[in-house]
Formats: sequence, structure tokens, C-alpha cells
Amino acid sequence: MSNPSDSWIFTATCPSLLGTVDVVTRFMAESHNYINEIHSFDDHVQSQFFIRIEFIPEKDDFSPEQFNGDFSSRAAPFEMNWALTPPWKKERVAILVSKFDHCLNDLLFRYRTGQLNIEVPVIISNHPDLEHLAQWHGIPYYHLPITAETKAQQEAQILALLDEYHIDLVVLARYMQVLSPEMCSALDGKAINIHHSLLPGFKGARPYHQAWEKGVKMVGATAHYVNNDLDEGPIITQGIQPVNHTDYPQSLISKGQDIERITLFNAVRYHIEKRVFLSGNRTVVFSN
Amino acid sequence: MSNPSDSWIFTATCPSLLGTVDVVTRFMAESHNYINEIHSFDDHVQSQFFIRIEFIPEKDDFSPEQFNGDFSSRAAPFEMNWALTPPWKKERVAILVSKFDHCLNDLLFRYRTGQLNIEVPVIISNHPDLEHLAQWHGIPYYHLPITAETKAQQEAQILALLDEYHIDLVVLARYMQVLSPEMCSALDGKAINIHHSLLPGFKGARPYHQAWEKGVKMVGATAHYVNNDLDEGPIITQGIQPVNHTDYPQSLISKGQDIERITLFNAVRYHIEKRVFLSGNRTVVFSN
Amino acid sequence: MSNPSDSWIFTATCPSLLGTVDVVTRFMAESHNYINEIHSFDDHVQSQFFIRIEFIPEKDDFSPEQFNGDFSSRAAPFEMNWALTPPWKKERVAILVSKFDHCLNDLLFRYRTGQLNIEVPVIISNHPDLEHLAQWHGIPYYHLPITAETKAQQEAQILALLDEYHIDLVVLARYMQVLSPEMCSALDGKAINIHHSLLPGFKGARPYHQAWEKGVKMVGATAHYVNNDLDEGPIITQGIQPVNHTDYPQSLISKGQDIERITLFNAVRYHIEKRVFLSGNRTVVFSN
Amino acid sequence: MSNPSDSWIFTATCPSLLGTVDVVTRFMAESHNYINEIHSFDDHVQSQFFIRIEFIPEKDDFSPEQFNGDFSSRAAPFEMNWALTPPWKKERVAILVSKFDHCLNDLLFRYRTGQLNIEVPVIISNHPDLEHLAQWHGIPYYHLPITAETKAQQEAQILALLDEYHIDLVVLARYMQVLSPEMCSALDGKAINIHHSLLPGFKGARPYHQAWEKGVKMVGATAHYVNNDLDEGPIITQGIQPVNHTDYPQSLISKGQDIERITLFNAVRYHIEKRVFLSGNRTVVFSN
Repeated sequence: MSNPSDSWIFTATCPSLLGTVDVVTRFMAESHNYINEIHSFDDHVQSQFFIRIEFIPEKDDFSPEQFNGDFSSRAAPFEMNWALTPPWKKERVAILVSKFDHCLNDLLFRYRTGQLNIEVPVIISNHPDLEHLAQWHGIPYYHLPITAETKAQQEAQILALLDEYHIDLVVLARYMQVLSPEMCSALDGKAINIHHSLLPGFKGARPYHQAWEKGVKMVGATAHYVNNDLDEGPIITQGIQPVNHTDYPQSLISKGQDIERITLFNAVRYHIEKRVFLSGNRTVVFSN
Repeated sequence: MSNPSDSWIFTATCPSLLGTVDVVTRFMAESHNYINEIHSFDDHVQSQFFIRIEFIPEKDDFSPEQFNGDFSSRAAPFEMNWALTPPWKKERVAILVSKFDHCLNDLLFRYRTGQLNIEVPVIISNHPDLEHLAQWHGIPYYHLPITAETKAQQEAQILALLDEYHIDLVVLARYMQVLSPEMCSALDGKAINIHHSLLPGFKGARPYHQAWEKGVKMVGATAHYVNNDLDEGPIITQGIQPVNHTDYPQSLISKGQDIERITLFNAVRYHIEKRVFLSGNRTVVFSN
Repeated sequence: MSNPSDSWIFTATCPSLLGTVDVVTRFMAESHNYINEIHSFDDHVQSQFFIRIEFIPEKDDFSPEQFNGDFSSRAAPFEMNWALTPPWKKERVAILVSKFDHCLNDLLFRYRTGQLNIEVPVIISNHPDLEHLAQWHGIPYYHLPITAETKAQQEAQILALLDEYHIDLVVLARYMQVLSPEMCSALDGKAINIHHSLLPGFKGARPYHQAWEKGVKMVGATAHYVNNDLDEGPIITQGIQPVNHTDYPQSLISKGQDIERITLFNAVRYHIEKRVFLSGNRTVVFSN
Repeated sequence: MSNPSDSWIFTATCPSLLGTVDVVTRFMAESHNYINEIHSFDDHVQSQFFIRIEFIPEKDDFSPEQFNGDFSSRAAPFEMNWALTPPWKKERVAILVSKFDHCLNDLLFRYRTGQLNIEVPVIISNHPDLEHLAQWHGIPYYHLPITAETKAQQEAQILALLDEYHIDLVVLARYMQVLSPEMCSALDGKAINIHHSLLPGFKGARPYHQAWEKGVKMVGATAHYVNNDLDEGPIITQGIQPVNHTDYPQSLISKGQDIERITLFNAVRYHIEKRVFLSGNRTVVFSN
């Protein structure tokens, strides 16, 4: 048996049709790729098929170019979109923050210790506060202040940095800024935000204060893709924390930190491990 | 030591002031009542004090009338409202249902086995479906159908039954009817509803369908007091259930049943054990 | 799209080898069976492969006999053991109980309302207490008292009943008797027990008392297959319940009931939906 | 109303007796100390009383010496042991580690951001690996290697450091060394260990490997006081993490990290907030 950490990941989606699994798994067998794990799902409402496979090539000269070339004629009749991710791939992640550091500290810890298999080439913030944390990890930190007047310009600077650093994924780790529609469009599907409530409850600003006003007995966090409707992007995962009458907004904020950072970590991990598929405004997540 | 199940329960609330605890506990000691457990809470925002005490009288001739009489002069300067609940008190609970039986079955099971220390003198429904369950438990079942035209009349019939059976608490165990403002007023503070979502998310009808549309990764249930604003009454307790992309509305409904019935049970238990206090539109719950 | 409740279930296991998925999915496609859902797992330590597929035949004249006949020559080189389960299959479940009724009540409720897709042709107990519950559900109830002297004979009676009623699965719903090694062997792999602790903690008798002595802050329940080593059979699923210093053994028993019955229900559901595979003394569970 | 963060904490324990609450709360009222929160518990088995009060002095010249002097004559008849903790008190915590840094990183983050109201004057390890983390936080780091031969000497060095730095509490943040009985005695009641299993399951070495062997579906962590019986000290709190068949020992180790660090954090917080009382080999924890 091979080591599962040598696994390539194959992901695909197409309209539901007889043979969608077979076309993939037959090709895997014929091209001598050993399947470690397979997840598939058929959305009966959308009539859409999703599949994720972890496989290990048994031939030493495995070539992704040849795989893609050979598979394309088989995929065509199914109108299948697919992607191959090599085991050594590390997504290049830009982290955007404001002043809160619990999510940033958590992501950097998991990055530093290898729990999160990513590169973090750049951290961007509208405040200077967290530069020391970036420095200690040897990561460039850009302080790009923002005002109503400079918003367009600041967002352009961010987009330029994402381009310069060849960023695959943007993580809004409590960035606390409402992105412009243009920025949302630019980041569509490649940015993950953590919102500190169980959406759709308590959208918008100060959700813990809203939660306290309402007297809820659970607070939570929602990690979702950014789209152009604030706090309405497709949800990847959610976490909860029981609270009680002794909590005031300040202690809700404090109690919520752990669930925020764990929820954000899970979402980033699912994303980089290619476990998340968009299905309309919903997600298919082959979690483990 | 005495048996804790012999405990009387003392509950009180008043504006925050120095000595609010002392006035109670001193009286307890002087009147030879042994305190088993004490919970207190000061709401700093409302400046309101809440206390719950379980105690065991050490004198055989303990008289609640004398307790109340003696305590009243001490309570007066604090404008304290208090109540005594004897260990043998069983609240008389009316259960209102429609066609779903998971909450009813659960409450009746706990009632029958003594886990829920209540009387259930009457079950009322707008449908005939669950009469067999009531019959098996030997509980009168009233089938009061409802239409838009007969709503006022039907609600009057219900109120008459609550009166006839000397009901202390009404439990809406998935009753599925929107109560009229008049009915809500009549039940204010003495009716508990279970809503099958994590309020304030997914108010109103078909919350599991709403949850599926939104693509959330958690569903939940909220037990709250009825007031005159639908699904907006003070929350007593909430429960959650993780879900995923393989769930359709039908399986959400099925998966949610356990959390609904446990959440409703907890709320009823907290209420009858005098653990719940209203504090504006929020609750103080001395849970255990 | 077809209705997923029309799904057949295909399960198989064999040694790990290139092509284990392909041999199944290719056959599915060629024989015009639409795959709704697929789970597979390769145990790298045991080098064993497990697969579970839900599929819908697209041909009206689907014949399981023909499926099995045609597939056998393909399965042979892989030494694959497989099984087909039709959508209309209801496992015949015998429930064994003593005096505690929370698990029995829960299973019967879910059976009666269709949440658990089983038949319950017989209930067997060493006490007469729960006969009324069986009667109300119209299920034969056998009271087979047991003493040290009559144990062998009583167990023989049980086995005879299991045979007479064509039982597929035995559920020990807090049966509270230690089965003889002979009985364990006879039930090997076809009986599920609920133990009221988080195994391997607190094996044996009175686990809640043991838990209280130890001062743990979590109690739990473990559903496992019966084998010939008491409380050591392969674990299917576990549940937990936080507790605290105010709990005495009696309240642990009461608090544990919900987690016991939900854990047992989940295990029975996983079993009848063919989601559980034995892998040595461990289980593979394709839960949903 | 005063700010709750100005609260003094009063804790006491004594044999159960009529008036144990009154003697405290009457004194509080008479000495003009405003009670924010009160928890009490009577252990019916041990006949022992426990109480924790948060209070705010209403007089500017509040003197703990005078409080203690005045209260002593009242406490005497009850054989009550009590302690006063001022709001500005920060416990001096020494952290002991080996090579794993997830717990250390977590504690230091919460210390640095004020979530954990402690001083960390010293970090001690038998390995040099984590010195950089200590350095970045400006905390002295002592690398004291240990072998079977040098164990007694190394432990003496540790004890000398605890003395030198006036340490109130020792936190074994995955220190991975079995302490000698002498060391255990020296630390009795003032050291907290995190064990990476749900005790009493999987005591001793490599609990995640044990858990994998057993095939459990939940792993957990247990924070407990150190006493002279390895992994048997009084449990403060426990946490759990569901796992499944796809987990190998390595992924259990990884998945368990979050629950280990949160469980350890909670235990430390409960301890420094004076929420934990010893009651034989069990604990009373007035958590919030």
C-alpha cells in the first residue's frame, strides 16, 4: 500500500447522467491509478453530479498532462468539468485582517506547524496592529488604511497585491470591512469570510450585540464564500457555542473566539483539500 | 442530611440593591430552613436581581403561610416579588398538538415514567390523529377543528378548557397554528412553544425548507414563551443538529425531531422547576 | 431523476487492489443502474477495501438474481464479498429488554412512525413490566424469567424464538443480562447492545455509579455489536452528555437516557441501512 | 451599578450545617459588600458545603485584612475555611512543555491578549524546541533535559525554579514526563495536567493509539489536578471530539489538538477564577 499523503485529488462535476461514476473510475483503473477514497453526490433537485477521489498513481511516470489529455475525450459526452490537484500543491493564501488577532494567530499557528498545508505569502490589513505577528512568522505585512474616500483605491491596491503574490485563496480573518461589489466580484469563489453569527441570524454589524439583545442561548460562526450579497455567500461550515444569561456582549465576543477560529480553519481546510463544491448558492462539502 | 427531593423552591426578583441576598438567606437561617442550593444573578443592564433557592425545612411544622407572612415585611423595602413552590407541587400542563406526534410522545413518555414531574389533565388538537396516544395514557383528548372562520370560537373553546382543567402551563408541542393576538395575550408567560429553527433565523412557516434553501450546515430548535409577536417571545433554551449537503427538507424534518423534543422537554423542565425568570424580552435560566 | 427512496443498496468488501472500485461501478453502468451515492474506504493497515452504493435500476425488469449471477465472475478475481438489499427490505428486529423502557419506547416510536424502517415481530424480556407497551403496539411479548439455574434454558428459549420469528437483528435495549458465551456466539454480528458508558471506560455493572465515583464531567453511551467478550464488541457509534458536580448517580442515570436511546437508534439505523462493516474488532461506518 | 470586573471573589468550604449561607451573606451585607453572583453547593454524600461569591465593596476603604479579621469569629463555629481574591490578582503560572506546542501556543495567545488573566514568568521544558515561542513572548525559558539518571536532579531544578519565580500554579501543557511521587506530592493541588483521552479510558502512554486500536468513535481530553496516582487526579473538565473510521492514530492526534487546548484553557481559567473546589477525589466546579 502507498502512503495516503502521496494522494492526488481528482474533483469533477457535471449534469446527472447514467455512467458519471463509471467514466471516472474506469479511467482510473485503466490508467493504473489506485483509488484511496471516493465521495460522490447527486443533487436530485439541481440534477447535478459531484465527485471527489483521492488516488495514488501506481506508475512512476504519472503525468497530469497525459491524464488530462486522455480523459478529455471521455469527459466530453458528460460535459464534465474536472480538476487534478497534486499532493505537493500548497495553495497560496492571502490573509486579510483588521485588529482582532484570534483568527490570524490560529491560522498562522496551523500553517507554521504544518496542520494547514498552505503558503501564506502576504498578510494585508487596514490597521497596523498585527504587523508584529506577521513579522515573527516572516510574512510581508501591508498596512493599507481605508476611508470612505479611499476605498476604491485601497481595494485596487489589495487586488494588485493578490496578483503580485499569485494568490489562490483570500481569507477574510475578521477583516471587518464591507467589500465593494466590484471587489466581491473580483473575489467571487476564491475568498472565504468568517461571520461571527449563525447565519442567516444576525447579519451585518455587531452580531454578538444583536444576539445579546435577542437573548439567544447559542451563538455561532459561519464560514462562507464571498459573493456580491453581504453575508449571503454560500455557507461552507458553521459552529456553535452555548451561552447563557450571565453573558453580556463582551463575554459573547470572548466566548465566540474559539468557535470562530475553528470554523474558519475547517472551511479553509475543506477548501484547500478540494472538498467543497458550489451548487447554486449552496455547497456540497465532502468533509472527513 | 435530608433528601433533596423534599426541597421547597423559593424564587424572587427585585431591583438590584445591597442586601438582596442577605434578606433572603438570613430569613432562611432564622426560620430554620436548610439551603441545599442557591443561584442568584444580577442583571447589570436592567439593574434587576434574581434568586432561586432550594431548601428543606428543618421544622416539621413548616407552614408556607407563616413563611410568606413573616417574610413579607422583610421583602417590602426591596420591592421583592417572591414565590414558594412545595416539593409535592405538580404543575397542570395542557398539551396542544396538530398531527406531528414526536414531541407529544416524548412529553407523555417522560410524564408517564416520572422524569417530568407534571400532571397532564388534557390534550387539545385541531386534528383527530393523535387521540389514540392520549387514550392509551388515559388523558382526555379534545378535537377542536379550526378554520379561518371558526378561529375565534375555537380559541375560546381552548381557553374554556384551560380554565375548566385548572391549567398552569400550556405547551404548544408543534401545534402549527398561529395564535390570535387575543389568545397570545391570554397565554402570556404561561405558554411554551417549540419553534423548529434556531431563532431568529427562519421565523414563520416551513423553517426546514427555508434552512435547506439557505444551505445552512446546522438546524436547530428554539423553545420560547408565547407573547404577542409570533416567534419573538423570550427564548428559554435552544438546541442544534449538524446537517450536510445530503439532506433535503424531508430529512431535515426527520433529523430535527430529536432536537425539537429534547429542547422542548428541557424548557418545560426548567419552567416547572422554577428555573426561568423573565427579564424584559430575555430570560434568566438557572439550569443544572 | 428517480426517487432516492427507490434505491437498492450494494455493499461489498475485499482485499485492497487496483480496480476494486472500477469493477463495481463499471458493472453498474453497463447494467444500467444509476448510482445515487457512493462511499468507499481503504483500510491501509488491514489492506481491506469497503464500498457501499445506493443505486436505482433504470430498467423496469431489474432482477437481483441476474445482477448477482452476472457480477459473480467479475467479483471472483477480487475475492469480493457483496450483498444486494432491495428498497422494500425491512429487517426483522427482536428487541430484548429488562425493566427500563426508555430505549424500547424510543425504538417503538420510531418504528411506529416509520422513522425506522423495520419490522418488530417480537419483544422478549426477563421481566413482565413492559408488556403493556408491547401490547399497545400489537407486538407479541415473551416473558422469560431467568435465574442462574435456568440461564441455559432461557437462552435456548430466546434462540428458538429468534428462529421462529425469522429474526435478522437482535437489539439489546438495556437487557441488563450477561449473555453466556454460547449465546454471544449464536448472536455474533447480528446483535447490537447499548452500554451506558463511553467504552472502554466503565465496563461492567453500574457504569453511572462508577462514573460518579470517578468524578467525570461527561457521561456517554456506546452501541456495539455483541461478541464473546463482554462490553468489548466492535463499537458502532457513541454519544456523550456533559454532567457536573450537582449530579448524583440517580441524576446521571436520568440524564443519560436521552443519549442512550439516540445512540442506540443511530446504531440500529446504520445497521439496517447497511452502513456498518466489520473490520477486525473495529467498524467502518458510512454514516450520513 | 459597579463594574463586575472590579469584583472580589470569596470562596469557602465547611461541613454542611444550617446557616452556612447566612453566615456569609449576612456578613457581606453588614460590611457593605455588594454580591454580584453567588454559587453554593451541598454535597449530600460528603456532607460538605461549598460557596463562591463575587462581590464589590461599596466602601472605598475596603480592607481585606479587616474583612478576614472580622469574619473569623463568625466562621469559627462552622469550621469554615475561606479565601479572598482581589480583582487585580494575577496568578503566577509556570508552563511545563516537551515538544508539542499547540497547548503552549494557545495559553500564550490567551495570556498575551488578556483572555487569561495570569502572569507567565517562566516556561520550563525537557527539550529546547519551543524556546523561540517563549522568547517572542519575552518569557524566560529553561531547558532542563531529563534522563532516568538525572530525573531526581531535574525535578529538584524545576522545584527550585517554581520557588524562585513565586509560582502559584503549574500547568503541564503536554509535558509528557511521568512525575516522581515526590514531585507529585510537591505539586499536589497546585498543578494541572492535560491528558489526551477521556479518562478513565486510555490512561498512560499513547492514548490516541490506544483509542484507534479500540475503534472508538469519540476521542477526548481531560484536565485534572496532579496527585500521586498517575492520570488519576481529580478531574476538572473534559472535552470530546467525534472521530470515524477514516482516522488513523496520526489524524486522531491532529484532530485532538483543538479539544486538548480548549479543555486545558478552561481548566486553567476555572482554577484562577476560583471556581474549582476539591471534594475528595472529585471536584466541584462552579463554571459559567
